[in-house]
Amino acid sequence: MDANHANRCIGVFDSGLGGLTVVRRLMEEMPSEDIAYLGDCARVPYGTKSAATVRRFAAEDAAFLMRFNPKLLVVACNTASAYALDDLAERFDVPIIGVVVPGVREAIAAAVDGGPVGVIATEGTIASGAYQRRFRADCPDREVLTASCPLLAPIVEEGRDQDDPIVLRVLGEYLHDLQRARPSVLVLGCTHYPLLSQAIGKLMGPDVRLIDSGQAAALAVRGYLLDNGMANPGPGAGTLRCYATDNPERFAAVAQRFLGRPTPNVTWVGTDELRL
Amino acid sequence: MDANHANRCIGVFDSGLGGLTVVRRLMEEMPSEDIAYLGDCARVPYGTKSAATVRRFAAEDAAFLMRFNPKLLVVACNTASAYALDDLAERFDVPIIGVVVPGVREAIAAAVDGGPVGVIATEGTIASGAYQRRFRADCPDREVLTASCPLLAPIVEEGRDQDDPIVLRVLGEYLHDLQRARPSVLVLGCTHYPLLSQAIGKLMGPDVRLIDSGQAAALAVRGYLLDNGMANPGPGAGTLRCYATDNPERFAAVAQRFLGRPTPNVTWVGTDELRL
Repeated sequence: MDANHANRCIGVFDSGLGGLTVVRRLMEEMPSEDIAYLGDCARVPYGTKSAATVRRFAAEDAAFLMRFNPKLLVVACNTASAYALDDLAERFDVPIIGVVVPGVREAIAAAVDGGPVGVIATEGTIASGAYQRRFRADCPDREVLTASCPLLAPIVEEGRDQDDPIVLRVLGEYLHDLQRARPSVLVLGCTHYPLLSQAIGKLMGPDVRLIDSGQAAALAVRGYLLDNGMANPGPGAGTLRCYATDNPERFAAVAQRFLGRPTPNVTWVGTDELRL
Repeated sequence: MDANHANRCIGVFDSGLGGLTVVRRLMEEMPSEDIAYLGDCARVPYGTKSAATVRRFAAEDAAFLMRFNPKLLVVACNTASAYALDDLAERFDVPIIGVVVPGVREAIAAAVDGGPVGVIATEGTIASGAYQRRFRADCPDREVLTASCPLLAPIVEEGRDQDDPIVLRVLGEYLHDLQRARPSVLVLGCTHYPLLSQAIGKLMGPDVRLIDSGQAAALAVRGYLLDNGMANPGPGAGTLRCYATDNPERFAAVAQRFLGRPTPNVTWVGTDELRL
């Protein structure tokens, strides 16, 4: 691969703002990389929508990012990773990394022998069976316990603190069976959930290791770029360009919570422009 | 108006399934009317999105319904009524009735003299100021108390019962200030909220009259059609055709809760086809 290749950006998309938790990890792991991010805020959430619709939206999002001639695409949205990854790989001639495969790989590496593993995610991600299939493929004997948590993403979007009584009550309900099963690892299968990791950790106890599938994906991206001579050698700091299909002002205001730093300018792009 | 006019259908759209509570009222009040319903389930919710995006989606939804040559359009979604009604009236040459004006009118009629009135709705509906402006226009001296309730629609979509502890806890928080202010009427400014009316009524107490803006809109439609000689004289039962931009199977499964009767066939229509 030539230097020109290494200088190309990484494209990242998500149904909304949650994917910025993945961008945050990418920037920490690979500070010299340029990143182009698209949040489909006009059609968020994906987690309650059908496979066919998520596939179409994901293809449109990816097609938009292809305008920036990326060297790699990251599907930061778990639901899009679960439903659309194969379809995207067929459509676009660029390496594509989702969050499910890296999340499962890290969970298996961290799991204590023999015990069950847990996954919490949106309705769509759990219903897709993508995490369950991947665990079966990588580690056939492992028991996989899942819980779909439809209210967690709206709760994070609403901006509630982790010690908010309603947050703890809702988490307590969703995690009830998992608390009793005591898995050795619990995959946070939605980009919003790392913002609740302290509360989830407190409810699950210190023996349950939480796996942030977005962080796992960032490490997978780093490994892929290094292995293939595609990493930007630096030393300059990379740029972050953000695009949103709705409300760039709200994006900029809320993004700091996900990104952990001030947000750069956000450009609006209409869903009209996201046609295949 | 000729009989042909009276035989044309009523078009109703909403961001998703919630507008079926309005359809239910329309069918009760005007059982001979044909109704064409569009739920934009692929892009639901509208309540967290920007004014510009809600206006565009609403215009696309209305344009789709215009294919059926409706005699009247009903904007069942409160957020779309709040943001898009003037824009729709400019674009389309058909009478259009939203839920905000009828809701305010019924609230004023029911309000005890002098006391404050309350409105609960989505973030977008409250932020638009549409209810507040309408109350000021119709009844300038009335104090209007509002609360935006971002989690209520997701909670209803999740299918929780009204006596679910989380439902009561979330409602308790959102209604806290309204409970102390004791308005004589409380407008349920989102089509999902009538499904929580028992719980809301219990928390607010028997002296607070709940106003279902969807029911108010259905009565306004009836009045308009009768006043203008546009009502279908019957005696046959009207038909209900449903269209959804996502997941018609889920629509059919969940719709019965909103509609109070078995759902007819639901036809999928892609958002691609909803272009202006």
